[in-house]
This record gives sequence, C-alpha cells and structure tokens, in this order.
Amino acid sequence: MNYVEKAVCLRRALHKIPELGWGEFCTTAKIIENLEPLGWKLYVGRQQISEEAVMGRSEEFVQKSIERALSEGVDKALIERMEGYTGCVAEFDTGRPGPVTALRFDIDCVGVEETDRKDHLPNLEGFRSQHEGAMHSCGHDGHTAVGLSVAQWIMDHKDELNGRIKLIFQPAEEGVRGGAAQAASGLLDDVNYLLGAHLAMMCKTGEVCIYPGGVLCTTKLDVRLKGKPAHPTMSPQLGRNALACACTIVSELLGMARHGNGLGCINVGLMQAGECRNVIPVHASIQLEVRGETAEINDFMVDQANRIVKGTALAYDVEYEVEKVGEAGELLNDPELADLVKEVSEKVPSCRKVIDHKKLGCSEDFTMLAARVRAVGGKTEFFVIGADRTAAHHQREFDFDEKGLETAFDIFTGCLRRLNGK
Amino acid sequence: MNYVEKAVCLRRALHKIPELGWGEFCTTAKIIENLEPLGWKLYVGRQQISEEAVMGRSEEFVQKSIERALSEGVDKALIERMEGYTGCVAEFDTGRPGPVTALRFDIDCVGVEETDRKDHLPNLEGFRSQHEGAMHSCGHDGHTAVGLSVAQWIMDHKDELNGRIKLIFQPAEEGVRGGAAQAASGLLDDVNYLLGAHLAMMCKTGEVCIYPGGVLCTTKLDVRLKGKPAHPTMSPQLGRNALACACTIVSELLGMARHGNGLGCINVGLMQAGECRNVIPVHASIQLEVRGETAEINDFMVDQANRIVKGTALAYDVEYEVEKVGEAGELLNDPELADLVKEVSEKVPSCRKVIDHKKLGCSEDFTMLAARVRAVGGKTEFFVIGADRTAAHHQREFDFDEKGLETAFDIFTGCLRRLNGK
Amino acid sequence: MNYVEKAVCLRRALHKIPELGWGEFCTTAKIIENLEPLGWKLYVGRQQISEEAVMGRSEEFVQKSIERALSEGVDKALIERMEGYTGCVAEFDTGRPGPVTALRFDIDCVGVEETDRKDHLPNLEGFRSQHEGAMHSCGHDGHTAVGLSVAQWIMDHKDELNGRIKLIFQPAEEGVRGGAAQAASGLLDDVNYLLGAHLAMMCKTGEVCIYPGGVLCTTKLDVRLKGKPAHPTMSPQLGRNALACACTIVSELLGMARHGNGLGCINVGLMQAGECRNVIPVHASIQLEVRGETAEINDFMVDQANRIVKGTALAYDVEYEVEKVGEAGELLNDPELADLVKEVSEKVPSCRKVIDHKKLGCSEDFTMLAARVRAVGGKTEFFVIGADRTAAHHQREFDFDEKGLETAFDIFTGCLRRLNGK
Amino acid sequence: MNYVEKAVCLRRALHKIPELGWGEFCTTAKIIENLEPLGWKLYVGRQQISEEAVMGRSEEFVQKSIERALSEGVDKALIERMEGYTGCVAEFDTGRPGPVTALRFDIDCVGVEETDRKDHLPNLEGFRSQHEGAMHSCGHDGHTAVGLSVAQWIMDHKDELNGRIKLIFQPAEEGVRGGAAQAASGLLDDVNYLLGAHLAMMCKTGEVCIYPGGVLCTTKLDVRLKGKPAHPTMSPQLGRNALACACTIVSELLGMARHGNGLGCINVGLMQAGECRNVIPVHASIQLEVRGETAEINDFMVDQANRIVKGTALAYDVEYEVEKVGEAGELLNDPELADLVKEVSEKVPSCRKVIDHKKLGCSEDFTMLAARVRAVGGKTEFFVIGADRTAAHHQREFDFDEKGLETAFDIFTGCLRRLNGK
Repeated sequence: MNYVEKAVCLRRALHKIPELGWGEFCTTAKIIENLEPLGWKLYVGRQQISEEAVMGRSEEFVQKSIERALSEGVDKALIERMEGYTGCVAEFDTGRPGPVTALRFDIDCVGVEETDRKDHLPNLEGFRSQHEGAMHSCGHDGHTAVGLSVAQWIMDHKDELNGRIKLIFQPAEEGVRGGAAQAASGLLDDVNYLLGAHLAMMCKTGEVCIYPGGVLCTTKLDVRLKGKPAHPTMSPQLGRNALACACTIVSELLGMARHGNGLGCINVGLMQAGECRNVIPVHASIQLEVRGETAEINDFMVDQANRIVKGTALAYDVEYEVEKVGEAGELLNDPELADLVKEVSEKVPSCRKVIDHKKLGCSEDFTMLAARVRAVGGKTEFFVIGADRTAAHHQREFDFDEKGLETAFDIFTGCLRRLNGK
Repeated sequence: MNYVEKAVCLRRALHKIPELGWGEFCTTAKIIENLEPLGWKLYVGRQQISEEAVMGRSEEFVQKSIERALSEGVDKALIERMEGYTGCVAEFDTGRPGPVTALRFDIDCVGVEETDRKDHLPNLEGFRSQHEGAMHSCGHDGHTAVGLSVAQWIMDHKDELNGRIKLIFQPAEEGVRGGAAQAASGLLDDVNYLLGAHLAMMCKTGEVCIYPGGVLCTTKLDVRLKGKPAHPTMSPQLGRNALACACTIVSELLGMARHGNGLGCINVGLMQAGECRNVIPVHASIQLEVRGETAEINDFMVDQANRIVKGTALAYDVEYEVEKVGEAGELLNDPELADLVKEVSEKVPSCRKVIDHKKLGCSEDFTMLAARVRAVGGKTEFFVIGADRTAAHHQREFDFDEKGLETAFDIFTGCLRRLNGK
Repeated sequence: MNYVEKAVCLRRALHKIPELGWGEFCTTAKIIENLEPLGWKLYVGRQQISEEAVMGRSEEFVQKSIERALSEGVDKALIERMEGYTGCVAEFDTGRPGPVTALRFDIDCVGVEETDRKDHLPNLEGFRSQHEGAMHSCGHDGHTAVGLSVAQWIMDHKDELNGRIKLIFQPAEEGVRGGAAQAASGLLDDVNYLLGAHLAMMCKTGEVCIYPGGVLCTTKLDVRLKGKPAHPTMSPQLGRNALACACTIVSELLGMARHGNGLGCINVGLMQAGECRNVIPVHASIQLEVRGETAEINDFMVDQANRIVKGTALAYDVEYEVEKVGEAGELLNDPELADLVKEVSEKVPSCRKVIDHKKLGCSEDFTMLAARVRAVGGKTEFFVIGADRTAAHHQREFDFDEKGLETAFDIFTGCLRRLNGK
Repeated sequence: MNYVEKAVCLRRALHKIPELGWGEFCTTAKIIENLEPLGWKLYVGRQQISEEAVMGRSEEFVQKSIERALSEGVDKALIERMEGYTGCVAEFDTGRPGPVTALRFDIDCVGVEETDRKDHLPNLEGFRSQHEGAMHSCGHDGHTAVGLSVAQWIMDHKDELNGRIKLIFQPAEEGVRGGAAQAASGLLDDVNYLLGAHLAMMCKTGEVCIYPGGVLCTTKLDVRLKGKPAHPTMSPQLGRNALACACTIVSELLGMARHGNGLGCINVGLMQAGECRNVIPVHASIQLEVRGETAEINDFMVDQANRIVKGTALAYDVEYEVEKVGEAGELLNDPELADLVKEVSEKVPSCRKVIDHKKLGCSEDFTMLAARVRAVGGKTEFFVIGADRTAAHHQREFDFDEKGLETAFDIFTGCLRRLNGK
C-alpha cells in the first residue's frame, strides 16, 4: 500500500469517528498511535495548548467526549496524557542543520448529521460517520490523513532531509477556536516555514490555488446578560429586562458603522432569552460573529460590539459578559514561499492547473498560527488543493474526490524536499 | 369521614398527580371515577370542549400525558372516552323546576418542581408531587377536591334541591387557555347562576373576598417568524433575518401606546431565535402577554401587537404567525349574586371576615365562562376563599391551609341551599 | 367699578399682551405698576427667583422679550429692576400677629396663535392678543387679574386683617418651569397657608372642585447628543452617529419599565437630528416628558430616562447632555385647608356646586411651591374654579366665562377673611 | 482673449452667482445669452426637462430663485421661456453627415457659505459668491465655463466639423437630481458619443483619469410619515406616533442586509419629528441615501428601504410617503471612446500624466444621461481632469487651479476634432 492508498485508508477510518472541536479524543489517539511508533517526538495535552488562549471550549462537552472515547475503546492512559486538551504536535529532528518547517493539519469535524443517501460514497463504501450528529463535512479527515501519510514518508526519507520538521495537528478549527491556543503554546516560535492547505473549497480536482482570497478576519463573541425577575403587572419596576436589552443590542449591532477601507460583516446567529411568558426576563444570551477584510476592520467591528453591549447593558441596568469564543486573522501568504508551492505544484502529476487568486469567503485559524510564525520572522503559506465535491462544505451530502489526497501528499512532500532536502 | 375530611383526602391524592393544562388525564379520570358512581351525568371529551376554541394545546404534549396516564394505570377506556380533551362537566337534574346553577372548579397544575424542604406539608405527610417538574402550587388541587366533595353532598341532599346543578371541572386554567373552549361547548348556555372561587390568594384563613379587584383581562400570544437562511458574508442578500425582525418586534411591543382609560401591560417573556452563529437566522419565536384593566384596553393592546407583528414581518420580508394561546376577560360580578355569597359567607362558621374589595393583580379564565353565562342573561360571581399560605402562588414552597377547604365547601353548599333549595 | 369689574378689565388688558414663560416683562411691569401704588412691598428679579433652580429659560428668548417690552413702552427702569427674571412676589404686613397666607397666581401664556373667528369674544370686544403666536389660552390672564383685584381688596380692608399676606405672581407655569425657582427663593418659607386655583379646566361656571385628581408629577427633559461627522461611504468608521443614537434612545424610552404602583407615562415629543443627507449625523436633540401618579413613580421614570441616555450614548460613543427643563410634583391638598375652601365656596353666591373630586389629567408647578410650604409645616390647597369654556385649554379658540373671575375673587377674599380676619 | 482666457473669465462670472439645483435661473440665462448669438439652436424649459422624471425640486424654492434672478436683472422674457425649469440643451447641425456627439456640463452649486479667508482666490480677485449660503465649491462653474468656451470654438470651426453636436447644460447635479429628467426629455436619444468630465477630484493639475473608479450608484429618498396627535397621558390610545415610527425605521434601515457582491451603504442624514413635548408626535420626515457598487446592489438597498418604510408604517398605523429625490447609476465607460479620450489627452500640452484608474468614492448623475445614450447604442465616457485644489470639494475653502480649464478645453475640442472632424 503506497502513501496515497494509506492516506485514503486513514481518511476513511477518520471519517467514521468525526469529533467536534475540543472533543477530538479518538482522533488524537489515532494520531498518536500512528506517529509514536514511527519515532516522532510528540507534544500532547497542555504541552501544545496554552490554556489561557483557549476559546469556545466547554468542560461539560469535553467530559462527554472523553467518556465516549473511553467507551469506544480508546486507551485510558492516552486519554490521561491528553489532560483534557486534544490535538498534537509532532517533531522530528534530522540532527543536521537546516530550517524548521511546519505543516499544519486540522482535525475536527462539523455538527451535521451525515446523509443516508445510498449513493453517498461513505454509505456505499461503509465508512459513514458512527457519531450521531457529527460529520467530517469539511474535509478535515482528509487533512489529518494526509498529515499522517506525510509523517510516514518523512521517516522513510529521513536520511534525505535536513533541519527539523513539525507536524501540527490542530483541534477546533471550526469556529476558529483552536489555532490561537496552539500558537500560544510557543511550539511554533522556531519555525521558518509554515504550510497549510484546505481541500476542495472552490477548486476542482487537479486545481491548486496559491493565494486564496476573501479569507476574512473574524471574531466570534458570546454575550450573556443577566437582569432581575419581576411580575410584569404587579411590580415591573423591580425587573431588569435582559430580553429587551438583548433585542436593542441586536438592533445596534446590525446597524453598527461599517469601515470605508473594506468589507466588514456582522451576524447575530442565535438568541435565547427569558424564562416564561409572565415574568420580566432575567437571562439572555446571543451568539455573534464579526468579519473584516483586514485586521483593522475586524478590530473596529469588535470594538463596536463590545461598546454596544457595555453601553446598552448600562442603559437597561443589566449585568453583561462578553466572551471571545473564536478568532482568526488575515491570510497573508509570503510571496517567496508561495512561489515555491506554485513551482512544486506545477510539477505534481495530479495537478492540472495552478490558480493564483480565487475568492473563498471564509475564515481560517491557520492565520493564528501563521501570525505567530511571521512574528518571529518565519514565512507562511496557505493554499487550496482542489477536489471535486458532491455538495457544499458543511452540507450533509458533502464528500470530496479522494484524488485530492494525492495532490496534497505530493505537494507537501515536494515542498519538504525543496525546503529541507539535502 | 365527613365532607371536609373527604375534601382534604381528595386534595392530597390530587396533589400527588399534578398535571399541566390539557394534560390532566389522571385528574379527569379521578373526577369521572368519583362522580359517575354518584349518578352524575357526565360530559367528557369533545362533549364539553369546543375544538375550535381550544388555545395553547400541543398534540405532542397531550400524547405524552396520555402515555403517562396509561403507564400510571388509568383505565384505557376512560382515556379513549376523553378523546384527547381533559376536563369534564357533570350535570344533575332534580326533576323539579328551579334554576340552573353551575359551580366551576379548575383542575390543572403549574410547571414547578415541588420543594424538597422537610417541613413542607406534602413532604411531611407524604403527598408530594410524583410528577417531575409539575406541582399544584396554585391550589387547584383544593378546588377540584372541594368540587368532588360538593358533588357528593348534592347527591346526599338531592331531595332538598330544585332545578339543575352543573359542576364544571375546567382544564388548562394556567395560561388562561381552557375556559374559552369549555364555554364554547355551549354547556353553560342554560345556566342562571355561575359561581367560582380561588383559594388563598391575598386572603388569609377565615377571610372571604366578594369582589376581588385587579383581575385583569389578558391575551397570551405566541409569535413565530420564518425567514430565509444565507451565508452572512458570501450572500447576505439572500437571507431574511427572522432574529432581527423579532428583536424589532420586541422593541415596538414594549413601546406600544398605553391607554388613557386605565392600566395596560405587556410582557415579552421568552424569545428563541436563530440556528447557528454563522447563518442568517431563519426561525424566531416569542411568547408574550398583554393585560388590560378592561376588555377595551386589553383589545387595544392585542390589536397593536397584531399590527406590529404584521407590519414588521413585512418590513423584514419574513413570514409570520400569531397564535392566541390564552385569554381571559374582565371579572364582572353580579351584585345580587355577590350579596348572596356575602350573606352565606357571613354565616359560615370558619369565616371570620368578609372583605368587599381586595386587589389581586392576576387574570382568570373563569371570566370566559362567566361571559358566556352573562350573554344569556345569567348571573355570575367569583370570590376568594382565604387560606394562609407558606409561599406565594406558583412558588415551589407553596402550600395552603386546608381549613380553606372547609370554608369553600360550606359556602358552595350554602349557596346551593339558597339558590336551589326547596 | 367694583372689584370684579376691575378684574374683568384687567384680564382683558392682560389678554392683549400674552407673554410666554420667562418673557413676561410687560405682564410683570403691569403687576408692579398696579401693586406698588397700593403700598405692597415687592420682591422683583432675583429677589424672588433663585437662578440655580431656573429651568427651561433661554437667554436669547429673554433678550427678545425685553426688546419687545421696551418697544411697547415698558419703563426701562422697571425692566432693569427685573434683572432678566419675570414674576413678582408682593407682601403686606398688617402689623398684627397672625398667620402668613400666600395666594399664587400664574402669569404666562401659551405659544398658540389666537383664532380670528369673529364670534370669539376677544375679537368681538377688541382684546385679541397683540403678540403674534402667543395667546392666553390657558386662563392665566384671569388668574393674574384676580390676583390684582384681590390685592386692591386687601389694601381696602387692611384694618380688618391680621398677620401677613403674600401674593405670588409666578412666571413660566407652562412647561412647569417657574415654580421651582420661585420656591427656591425662600420667600415662601414662612408661609402658613398657600392657596392656588385654576380657572375652568373640567368644571363649568358655578362649579368649584376642592380635590382635583389626576394632577400628575412630571419632569421635562431635553437631551442633546453630539457625535462626529464622516463621509458615509468613504470613511464611515470615523463617524459617530448621533441620529442613530437618538433613535435607539427613543425606542428604549418608550419601552421603559412602568411602575406597579400606578400610572407612569412617557412622551418624546420632538426630535431633530442630522445636518445633511450624505454626512454621518453629528447633532441630535430630543424633548421628552415623563409623568407619574406619585413622586416615586415619576422619579423612577426619570432615573430610567437618565440611565438610558447615558448607556446608549456610551454604546454609540457620542457625547450627551440631559437638561431638566421643567418639573412638577404631586398635588397633596391639606384636608383642613381644603375644608375651609369648601366652606367658603359653599357660601359664595356665584358657586352653585362644590365637587370633591374630579380628574384633570395635567401637571401643575403650584406643587413645587406647595412642597416648599409643606416642608416648613404649612398647609396648601389647590382648587379649580369652574368657568364655561369655548374650546379646550391651549386651543386657539379657547375662551372662558368671565363669571369665573367673580367666583375666584369671592373665594380668595372669603378665605382671607377666615384665615387672616380679625 | 483666447478661448481659455474666456473660460477663466466666464468661470469667475459664474462663480459670483452660484445657484442651487433647480434654481439656476441666472446661470441658465447666462448660458442662453452666450449661445444664442452664436447660432446654437436651444432647447429650454420643458423642451429639455421631462417633468415626470424631475426629482428633488421644490416649487417654493424655484419661485424664490426666480424672484432673486429677476431682482438681479435677469430678463423676464428669458425667465418665462424657462417655464420654471433650468438647464439648457444646445444643438448645432453642420449639415453634413456624421455622428452626433454630446458634451455634458453641470451648472449648479453647493449650499455652502464661501470662506472669507483673504488668501482665498475669489476673495483676492473679487469674484466671491454674491449669493448667501451658496457657493461653487464643486467646480461646476468651471464645467459651465468650459462648455461655453467650447461652444464658441465649435462655431468658429464649424466648417471643419461634420455631423451634429449637442451641449448638455445640466441642472441639479448635486443630489443627483437633474440628470434623469434631462435624459427623459429624449434629446439624447440620437447621440452616438457622450462625453463628460469633472474637474479636480482626486487628480492634480496636469493629470487626467480615464476610468474613474468608485463612482457608486445611489438613490436619495425622502420619507414622510403622518400619524395622529393625542394627549400622551389622557388619551394616548388615540395617537399614532410618527416619531416613534421614524426611529424604528432608522434602526431597521441602518441594520438592513448588505449584499455579498460588493459595497452597499446607507446613511440617514436628517430627521425631524414631532410638534411639541406633550403631544404624541404627528409628523416625521427623514432624508436618506443608499449607494451601491453596482445597480443590482443599489436596487437591493432601495427595495429594502421601501419595504422597511411600508412595513413599519403599517406596524405603527401611520401614513407614509417615500419620494425619490435623486438617482445616479453605474459609471460604465466605453473602452473605445475611453481610448480616444486617452489618446487625445496624451497630446494635450497641459496634460502631464494620463491615469487609467483612480478611485473617487462619489456618485454622478452623468450616469443617467449615459444610460439613455447606451440604451440606444451610443458610447459614453466620463473622465476626470486634474486641477490642484485648496480644500476638498464641498468645503467653503475649496478652489481649483484654473489651469484645469485649459486641459478641459483642449480635451473636449480635441475629441470633437477626432469624432466630428472632416
């Protein structure tokens, strides 16, 4: 079984056990179990996650995920090693001087129930999600599989390589929650080159896009309000209406000033407020996100959101809390490294067409890792590896053409040969 | 065991099996099983409920309630007889000319988990609620028990009575949902006198209040909005934002015009909106109530609410639905009948003090039954029978002094002697 | 010419020169010119107005009013004596021991253009307003005229009186602006009895109402917001939108919590915002009033309004200013003094009917003077002296039956005889 | 005096008599008086303005403007000929076959008071605005002057030209109000080439920009609401609150959905609402504009605005009116004609630099004329002729380098030679 066949195999195995962000215990176990025998040095648990920088992680959800992992036979010692924090960083030192190159693979899934359509490949071939309400409908199973396959290739070719190589298996990319915490671990602070890629997106099988555009900065915020209950007829003056406050906040948020320098967006996606019909509502919570074409714009939106919540809570005399539960920055590819990926891609057999620019319209917390690397002088590049898909990302009918795995494997290893080859 | 002892017994039995409105299958079964052997003619199911006038009833909840009733041993034949509609009207014809007098007892409970404090009487005496999250914390167990006790007294004294007597066991008083449907059955259209009472409220043991004030008209509305999903950055123009619409509706509702002729209130108690953070929200629902000192004021508030929802849905291009899920009218006691209750009360041994007016600050769908009776020329009276209580109504520590049952029994039977006595 | 004929004469003369609050220079001059020759000790200008407590007074308007007064021939020395502050307090000391009784008459007019209907008495009899856009359509011309007539009566009967008598000619009652400043002068701090009355209102000729109801506490607020301009397309991020902030404030104000203890109202009557279509709006101003059945309720509304403005200004990052431009309190009549007015009224020939209670639905800053008097132990009473009217108060067709002047004169002098008679 | 000297002269004369849109009676008279003697065929008044398509024109303002024009000595016969509609289209037929070429010059000014700084050229040279509150601070005086100078050149060179030439002197460009009405006159329906230009903008003296970017589509809307008055305490139920409705409309407008395909903006620049503090507000008016990168986006914003007003007026039960008072479309230059302008410009002595693309960030109703021409198969081009400026456009210190007039004259005549030369 060659590397690509192995990647397909691994992708299908991972597809069966999709796990939502911060709950990837089975997945992380599988990564460890693959890498450790190969001789990779592993950073696990808090070694690779800075707790203070963790966003959008619920202890209750983590416990449930651990329980499920244990019930599915994951080794208890492995779970303990993870210390409640999923993801893993693997390092290999050739012992020879040379650059530090890092490859990043995200590992989590999406909260979608996989389709039961018979013609859906995972159903045809028997690798449908075995976790209810969870599905790899964003292709991260493919990313992880490629990472593991590349890991083996590296060990098989270690005598042909210089410097050091790091493989970043990042948790909780959905909701852009995990990147910041892994970046804050410091494990990337010695990296010279950081590469990452996404499968499919707007590119077809055989296409590679070097400068994906429209990758927006974003911040995800949860707002919680707490007022005071009262009987709305007998003593409304004793109440502090969290629901009314939340509604005004929403109106203000949607009408916030935009920025003249580029696209800025806001969405309030969820609101829950109140206890029952005949009590002045005490609790309200809203989930929102802002996005911006640049960090400046995104920050401008975040600042406004914070000010709106603070001021309006004061107007209604309710307590408030704003929690940042996700964050991604600008995608700034280094031209030199981008050129290298372009050159490598052009020689990859399965790559038919290299596209310079293509608009995606999404956010990626690869940017959080990349910002850390750039901050210490490293170069970063994030590209898209085309793969035909059966439905849009995050849809329950989503599947991608596994030929993309070959393209990915070839580009990553090709780059390693160029960057770390003897 | 005398009548009052029996009422206490029944009350405690009923207290153990509290059922929320439209789900009172155990309770209705108990009523039927008590009355039928005594010779009462019973109207059950759709005989006593007009389906078109039913408010705030969910088929799913009804099915669950039926299943629980069956699992608790309620006779399947009885359940079938109820046709999915709880409550019951019992009629006795003396065969002699005379007025038709109706007594109304409400039978449902409140969605509150009963306290586990040891000094709480139901805990001490072992009649705590056996239904999780449900509790007779409004005293309707007492009302029903008195009704059943009075039913027996009537049969025991049937030779001393003239005319006809109807006992109205009304479902779903909480949320003022059941009165209108029972009224619309037409079973009260021949009633000359309608009496109803509430235990405790603002009155202490030994007190009776003849003209409870501050009983407000009210209408409960559920609003449901449906927009269209869209990616908030890629194609926000395709979305129709139900959450934003709901927030504007709430702001408009709270700011609606009040009425110069008296008190008008509005509360939006609950809101749920949106699906996830990064999709333009598709669904929103809000639960609200308006109240008015008079029907004119209440109607004015309802009209505004409907107009606000309709117009604002148009402004946001979302679909809307307004459902009336509860309604109660003005409490208009007939002076002549009120005088009679007063005279009777003054002679009741356990009654220490008859109070003419006392403000309650609540709503009662007795008023829906009363309106029907008044419409055909009958007279109606709703009074309060005092009973010390351990906590406010609807609190989980609520309990009432069972001496109030005696007062209630004596007044109801006293009135029957006056109105239907030979 | 008897006192009442003189009052009619004076009323018509005053009707020709109506002046809006804080601009009553002609009116004040007329009062001074009437009283001084009679021997009254006069407090003028800052002697009777505490500058810090002045509300709703614009220096620009005052200057224009002074210019007009001068142009109409008012003595320049008199104007200088007024120091820019209209109104006047007159005091007479009998030299004999006895109580201090104060009578209050308000002197300002309404900003309404008087009708030109031919059958309107002021047109028929030639005493139509000579001041464009200003009219005594609230009857204060009558109040002032009665005050002057009573002043003469007092001097004519000074040997029959004991104690001291004060006549309070109050400016700026409309908008309830002047009472507080005159009260704060301290001139009422020795008053034992304070009487005031309003002509017409809901009472017909011959009626007197002793306890006018529905006289609400009120506070008038002006809100001014200041943001920052910006081009709405090129650089909206530089703007701070005062118009948007004002709109949110209005929504919040109208939806503020009401009070369970009684009527509380809010009205935002005026808003002006923005500079031109294509600039982010910099300025916004709104004029609002709250009212409350009690001081507690009114204060609750005011507190909310202040909090709403403060918090929302913060949310929008705009500067704000809230100015109190008017204030009136609860009308609390002293039963003993009310009884005296009632007894006196019953003997007045032109009084056909004494009414105890009647709802007015207005506000009166007599209450500000009364609060000061009550604070030092004095007793106060405000009553209504009926007079048929041709249109509602503040309408341009308003006129009142001058027979009310006789009733008023007789009641005031009758009370003086009772309170200060030898 | 050569053509350019004449243009400078004319520009200064026009600068002294700036007139706001639809009030350019002096200006139009001056144009007529210049062109008619030269032999141009003139279309005046309704000949060149389609009344139904007129936007943002107030009859009252027009009358005042006419009165001023008459008072300043404009010939009454000329005024009558204008029929209340300013602007003018001049046509010259060479009698020889050839294309129809139209040049467009806008003639109105801005509502700004000209600076009194001594170093401001119009002050130094004595051609400061003589109309209070009005100023040519957008350079349209220069446009008109160039047009008149070109008109003379055409007549001086008529034997060297073929086809027909039309000069479009357009009123009311500010607020993008006049273009649509002049287009609807049909006078451009036979035009093969339409050229227009703006002085200064972001380009310096000597620069010419062929494809100005960021010229946004826009629609200007006036919204008027009418409610019903009521006393806010006595009978609020009778009121219909136009102010409250306007505030909700503003919140909804600012929060309207944006478009995924490009920039869309909204600004509510002005709001006036209410009559006085203590009456439920009856009237409210707001002035707003939307802009869009494309017509699709602009239309999407306009549709939302209309829907928001309609729905919210319904919610508040107030009457509404939405008037379109200005409109401009996408700037779509024809590449062939643009190339011609580019070539001509490159040969113009005063032109140092031809710029292909430069972002302006404004709107232009040249686009309305251009759309008409394109609709019948004509080609259009709008370019920018650089000129140093002393302040931003629409500022009171604005002035432009008159050397730009030479560049403009040379380009326009150069293009005519190319398009209509023998």
